[in-house]
Amino acid sequence: MSAAYDPNNIFGKILRGEIPAHKVYEDDVALAFMDIMPRAEGHVLVIPKEGARGLLDVSPATLGELMKRVQHVARAVQAAFQADGLTLHQFNESAGGQVIYHLHFHLLPRWDGVALRPPGTMADNERLAEQAGKIKAALTPFEG
Amino acid sequence: MSAAYDPNNIFGKILRGEIPAHKVYEDDVALAFMDIMPRAEGHVLVIPKEGARGLLDVSPATLGELMKRVQHVARAVQAAFQADGLTLHQFNESAGGQVIYHLHFHLLPRWDGVALRPPGTMADNERLAEQAGKIKAALTPFEG
Repeated sequence: MSAAYDPNNIFGKILRGEIPAHKVYEDDVALAFMDIMPRAEGHVLVIPKEGARGLLDVSPATLGELMKRVQHVARAVQAAFQADGLTLHQFNESAGGQVIYHLHFHLLPRWDGVALRPPGTMADNERLAEQAGKIKAALTPFEG
Repeated sequence: MSAAYDPNNIFGKILRGEIPAHKVYEDDVALAFMDIMPRAEGHVLVIPKEGARGLLDVSPATLGELMKRVQHVARAVQAAFQADGLTLHQFNESAGGQVIYHLHFHLLPRWDGVALRPPGTMADNERLAEQAGKIKAALTPFEG
């Protein structure tokens, strides 16, 4: 677990505007956008702008600020989808479940009796745009 | 998702010293200790001292500081068990997988080709004590 951050990953490209994403929140620290292979309705990813591979190499200051954004977006996701619960996942390295090597937190809204979907199915683009709109509408001002 | 924090939960009791735990790290913000039903060798829980039910009700300041401790302990867990990866889980409400209603982060060391164990099996007490010792020995000073 000591590989260096490589900015040539999908989330790095999203951060640089080289590929599109259904963004729901952005500030100087973090970006949140819809997962295109959602394991639940409203599945959002929250990433730092700092180039970090995972939990171990991100700067502590960025990690602390990032988590405030995770919470901020989580509140909006819960409200937008009237979720009964939320599951947070964060994977490090292949053995830990990581696929894209830019630190990211998965925010998964949950409902009683509804299991997570298996990974790997692409979502409909218009559906994701609609869900991003619902989350943005539920966001309150970020107070830090 | 609006129930109040109830301090009469197992982690509240651990924080108050009413029941024992295999502690690996403690400061004014957080406590980390071995999960007694580990889903992986070296499975650690990190909790805030602040009474919070989950991700949504914890104060942003505490959450930010807590995550720095999660990272700090994660580095020691990785080193102590020579993990190939790490998985972080955090569950909110029953629908989200939560069982004990005090905010906690699961730190799961991972190895290539080794799946997580199914939940629910109690670990041997001496084994947990030994693992806690390995993690404590791998901890560096916390620099915040």
